[in-house]
Amino acid sequence: MDKEKGGFTIPGELGYEELTLKMAKKWGADVIRDSDGTVLSDEILEAGYGIYSTICIIRDHNEWAKANPDKLQQTFLMSKHIMAVDNVVAIHILDGYFLEQFKINDSQESLQYWQVYDRTTEKVIPRSHWRFVPEAGNVLIQNVELYHTYTVSFMAYQIWEEISMYNHITNSWDKEHLVPVDPIYPETQDYLYQWLEDWCKKHPATTVVRFTSMFYNFPWIWGENQKNRSLFSDWGSYDFTVSPMMLDEFKKEYGYALCAEDFINQGKLHVTHMPAEKHQRDYIDFINRFVVDYGKKLVDLVHRYNKLAYVFYDDSWIGIEPYSELFPQFGFDGLIKCVFSGYEARLCAGVDVETHELRLHPYLFPYGLGGASTFCDDGDPTMEAKKYWRSIRRALLREPVDRIGLGGYLHLVENYPYFCDYIENVADEFRQIKKMHELEREAGSHVYSLSCRVAVLHSWGKLRSWSLSGHFHETYMHDLIHINEALAGLPVDVSFIDFEDVKAGELKNYDIIINAGKAGTAWSGGDAWKNSEAVCKLNQWVIDGGIFIGVNEPSAVEGFANYFKMAQILGVDEDTGAKVCHGKWQFEKTTIDGLLPNGYDIMSRENRFLTSGETVVLDSDGGLPTLTLNKFGKGKGIYLSAFQLSNANTRLLLNLMMYAMYGKTDQSYLTDNPETECAYFPSSKKIVVINNSEKEQLTSVKTDAGDKKFVLQPYETQFADL
Amino acid sequence: MDKEKGGFTIPGELGYEELTLKMAKKWGADVIRDSDGTVLSDEILEAGYGIYSTICIIRDHNEWAKANPDKLQQTFLMSKHIMAVDNVVAIHILDGYFLEQFKINDSQESLQYWQVYDRTTEKVIPRSHWRFVPEAGNVLIQNVELYHTYTVSFMAYQIWEEISMYNHITNSWDKEHLVPVDPIYPETQDYLYQWLEDWCKKHPATTVVRFTSMFYNFPWIWGENQKNRSLFSDWGSYDFTVSPMMLDEFKKEYGYALCAEDFINQGKLHVTHMPAEKHQRDYIDFINRFVVDYGKKLVDLVHRYNKLAYVFYDDSWIGIEPYSELFPQFGFDGLIKCVFSGYEARLCAGVDVETHELRLHPYLFPYGLGGASTFCDDGDPTMEAKKYWRSIRRALLREPVDRIGLGGYLHLVENYPYFCDYIENVADEFRQIKKMHELEREAGSHVYSLSCRVAVLHSWGKLRSWSLSGHFHETYMHDLIHINEALAGLPVDVSFIDFEDVKAGELKNYDIIINAGKAGTAWSGGDAWKNSEAVCKLNQWVIDGGIFIGVNEPSAVEGFANYFKMAQILGVDEDTGAKVCHGKWQFEKTTIDGLLPNGYDIMSRENRFLTSGETVVLDSDGGLPTLTLNKFGKGKGIYLSAFQLSNANTRLLLNLMMYAMYGKTDQSYLTDNPETECAYFPSSKKIVVINNSEKEQLTSVKTDAGDKKFVLQPYETQFADL
Repeated sequence: MDKEKGGFTIPGELGYEELTLKMAKKWGADVIRDSDGTVLSDEILEAGYGIYSTICIIRDHNEWAKANPDKLQQTFLMSKHIMAVDNVVAIHILDGYFLEQFKINDSQESLQYWQVYDRTTEKVIPRSHWRFVPEAGNVLIQNVELYHTYTVSFMAYQIWEEISMYNHITNSWDKEHLVPVDPIYPETQDYLYQWLEDWCKKHPATTVVRFTSMFYNFPWIWGENQKNRSLFSDWGSYDFTVSPMMLDEFKKEYGYALCAEDFINQGKLHVTHMPAEKHQRDYIDFINRFVVDYGKKLVDLVHRYNKLAYVFYDDSWIGIEPYSELFPQFGFDGLIKCVFSGYEARLCAGVDVETHELRLHPYLFPYGLGGASTFCDDGDPTMEAKKYWRSIRRALLREPVDRIGLGGYLHLVENYPYFCDYIENVADEFRQIKKMHELEREAGSHVYSLSCRVAVLHSWGKLRSWSLSGHFHETYMHDLIHINEALAGLPVDVSFIDFEDVKAGELKNYDIIINAGKAGTAWSGGDAWKNSEAVCKLNQWVIDGGIFIGVNEPSAVEGFANYFKMAQILGVDEDTGAKVCHGKWQFEKTTIDGLLPNGYDIMSRENRFLTSGETVVLDSDGGLPTLTLNKFGKGKGIYLSAFQLSNANTRLLLNLMMYAMYGKTDQSYLTDNPETECAYFPSSKKIVVINNSEKEQLTSVKTDAGDKKFVLQPYETQFADL
Repeated sequence: MDKEKGGFTIPGELGYEELTLKMAKKWGADVIRDSDGTVLSDEILEAGYGIYSTICIIRDHNEWAKANPDKLQQTFLMSKHIMAVDNVVAIHILDGYFLEQFKINDSQESLQYWQVYDRTTEKVIPRSHWRFVPEAGNVLIQNVELYHTYTVSFMAYQIWEEISMYNHITNSWDKEHLVPVDPIYPETQDYLYQWLEDWCKKHPATTVVRFTSMFYNFPWIWGENQKNRSLFSDWGSYDFTVSPMMLDEFKKEYGYALCAEDFINQGKLHVTHMPAEKHQRDYIDFINRFVVDYGKKLVDLVHRYNKLAYVFYDDSWIGIEPYSELFPQFGFDGLIKCVFSGYEARLCAGVDVETHELRLHPYLFPYGLGGASTFCDDGDPTMEAKKYWRSIRRALLREPVDRIGLGGYLHLVENYPYFCDYIENVADEFRQIKKMHELEREAGSHVYSLSCRVAVLHSWGKLRSWSLSGHFHETYMHDLIHINEALAGLPVDVSFIDFEDVKAGELKNYDIIINAGKAGTAWSGGDAWKNSEAVCKLNQWVIDGGIFIGVNEPSAVEGFANYFKMAQILGVDEDTGAKVCHGKWQFEKTTIDGLLPNGYDIMSRENRFLTSGETVVLDSDGGLPTLTLNKFGKGKGIYLSAFQLSNANTRLLLNLMMYAMYGKTDQSYLTDNPETECAYFPSSKKIVVINNSEKEQLTSVKTDAGDKKFVLQPYETQFADL
């Protein structure tokens, strides 16, 4: 065999040099990396591979941090609610927080940003009515109103960088807590720059500096009580960037001041799943510029030492925003994304950077998600790898990346030969798929897809393409992440737009708009739907032939005749209580041949009703419409009460789009079995057929050369010439 | 046997005189009534019974109505939504409505109240931009904005009184449609007064004039399409009272004008299940005064002819409001309520009037609820009667009424001897229960109950005691109607209060407050919870020992730190999306002996979470707390995610109240089997034990004379001496 090699990064491990080089050869690796807690020996460094070195620039500087305790990273925190039963209320502000993570910042610069709120009336308490008592850790509030509740919003230093805190506690490490330093201060910037320069000098073997990531982590606020340890965690929020200096700088630039409540937001903070407010978008832009400015200096420094600079698209990624217009200014040579799902592969593949690399799961750790066994006990890392690869593979068939790889502790694979074989198989398949895309590109072509331009419409648009925040298992409660995951491997063109794009006239670029999610959230759009300009543009676009697909509570907003602003287009609306006495249209189901694949399933949601007798009901459950089709002008509205990821539902989505676009669902170069999918590469006349199920599948593909049949083993990938 | 007789009203029927008198004797009737579509023969009228005659005063005057077509009853209607795709929009305003029910009123007085709305922006269109084209039935709107949608709110005459319309269509009658006349006009008043006087003169045998009811029916708007026949129906709404004159009079009295939108409300109208707006309460008060004023004249007239005047608490009951302070001014001698449920028996029993009478189900009709067979085909009227009596009986054990009776066509019972026997049994049980209450009253005592004063808190308070609107089968989707039905037969004192009562300091009169329902509705209270005065009064009351029971989305309102304003008391809150990234308290369930009866069941509802680690979780489902207890000050908060009526859940509610009040659940004079209940009459030392189930039950009651055991047949009532 003379297989392709390369495009694969393997984690090396000190003391396992032989295993490292053996596996590197088996998997066709061209790069060896270190991991958090591992170093590479000279034997590995000198074996002729590329070397990735991982750097988390803002931690592991404890000596400097101790000398500069006012330059640690900070965040706003809100105290518990305390009810006034006397004239004075005392609130012990850190109550409930993990004391190893936070330390109150009661400096004068900090205190000016603190706020005390009456949460019964949501009114701020005048500064003269409260004071902080440092020795007790209490805020005392005077002149309170009896039986109202009060909170204190205050600023706290982070005294334990949370990713290392998590690893430390999970692995029962016995070492000093790593403290995150804040590069907003010029002194920190100078120090880190110098440190990095020294580092580059001392690591001549390193070919790629992998930044993990830049400066600010997504927030992860821990509680004192084991029964409520993770108080808040959002992969896309900016809470951990604040400091008096940052806020002062913001005010200088934007001409208005932010206060604690702009972050605390009644204790809700600002989860990425909710629509952002104006000040929040300003602040994100502001941080983004700062991170790019200082980040670019570090990247330039790395380049000066003839190393490449890659960035990890997780952990301290806040302010990096790979989908912002500023991102290319960093000058990064590559971007690495850890992936569980197909949409994350697309998230990586879509970034404007030279090299895209996926860090596959499972990581080489004893335990994986939620503490389940992987490389230990009854763990089955091979099956895990198959399932993850099933999700990634279909995304890579639509849009390639340049590299894949693993992370963790290589010695763990020693007792899992099947895993080692399977990863070899994955690496080979990855390289074949990549090669086929390259051949198409060279021929000025691309993998075959339908002439179907889909845009997903949500509050964040392109900035948060593919995911508003986090991994699938963190966002499974949102319909749209299921849809995004389905779309990640479908043969359609996919974009992400926001309401400003709609107003700016971008609808003309799309055939299908999808809006999916719970009312009020960033997924469905929330108050953006109050804007009549966007609504009218959509109405016009549908009348002219556009297809609007709404899921769950699409376009829902309070205050109007219809709860769904697109109700007239969809032919469906939701009663929030005010129409409980209104009659509802009875209906019969309509069957359309070939539209609904075997095994599809749509959960009903309560209080959905037809707005017209013309709405075609394709499916229903317990008297509630679950899938409807409504013609409007030359266009259509399609409503689904829910969308849950499955092979059959993925095909249902594709069928709905095809039926709405073309009036039929029997296109060429699609498999006829929803458990399978295929990708056709027209220049090379090759087809890749994949089995997305754990069972053997028979499938047939209509091609210009006639119908082709395939028998696929569980999870199998077949490459064939047509 | 020398059984008690009386307190029973039987419907007589022409041509079935022998049956009428036979059944009257068997059931112990003292009164014979006519029904809609029946008359009584002289043989019956002269048989020595009291005679009820049914009068629906506002219909059956078609000749006068034809001569006065501008004095028919009216309502506002809203057209369909029409989207502008051109510069002019034409809306055929009656489209979709049942043309046999409505006729456009396009008089000048009417047109001044019409409104055209842009529903995309919810802005009213200037009068100069639209005109009505009578010959086409269209409103033409100029200067529209493209792709906005428009509606017309207009006034229409009711040309078919809807209760007779329903009976007419259901029974395929072939006779003239009855038109409702509007007594707001002095000419109508004079005509009806004269008509009633003539009627009284012509009906000397009548002892009781039964008004069905006064003047305005609850709205029942029909659609043209059979698949959406009932467009709107709300037992408690005031839509069918409007007319240009009524609105003009309102403006004179209140100093501000109402417009169409005040009724149309974006097409939502104003269902009783939503909190009323200020103008709506003003309008209800205004109509109430008018109905009482003119109604009293008719009652006085009836009295002048030495007849009693009873009023039916259904159908045209709008403006009567038996729980308003004005009601006694009518001078009615009795009130008759048709009942399916225990809470309706209490609704009747609680009105300030001399005689309370229940019209039991099933009615003597071939078909009952939803068209199901009763006295025909495979109908089982005896089983129906047992199930309804099971619900009514337990309510009558708590609070008696004076009379019961049946309605409909007596000849239908001929082939149902078991039904006739069972009704004899019901009549006897009713008279025994009534007698026991009378004996207690004479002894200055009353049926034994716990020292537990419960108030249900909702938007309407006392005005809509026991039901916001309608029968159980119409309101089953609201948790509180299940709770009200449970409370109807529990040995506790029950009141209904609103937020003004809370602010006025009435909490001191109660031990337990219940707030139950979906957010935003009148059941839970909606925006009333924004008022901090009410919230603080409740907080204080709990701290001082009060017990706050919240169900579903109690005290929920947007805009505050907590979604449930009473979250701190309850120890539970709901995430509406903004806290999806916030950690939730893990918990274990706590078991309290004797608290949770066998067979109870509480449905979980999504996104509920504990606000504190102190909240005691008594039950949960799928990780969601479904039943919790939280101590706060000297008081407690109890949360249930749902409440569905069942014998076990009814006992659960009682147990929760007892446990919260007394710290234990083993009180005396309660059955130990949740399928059974009992009522103890302390002066006569009698106990009534009832089986609320369809199976034989063994039950034990702890009494001062030791534990007493009972074996009860299905649905059985046992009377015993202690």
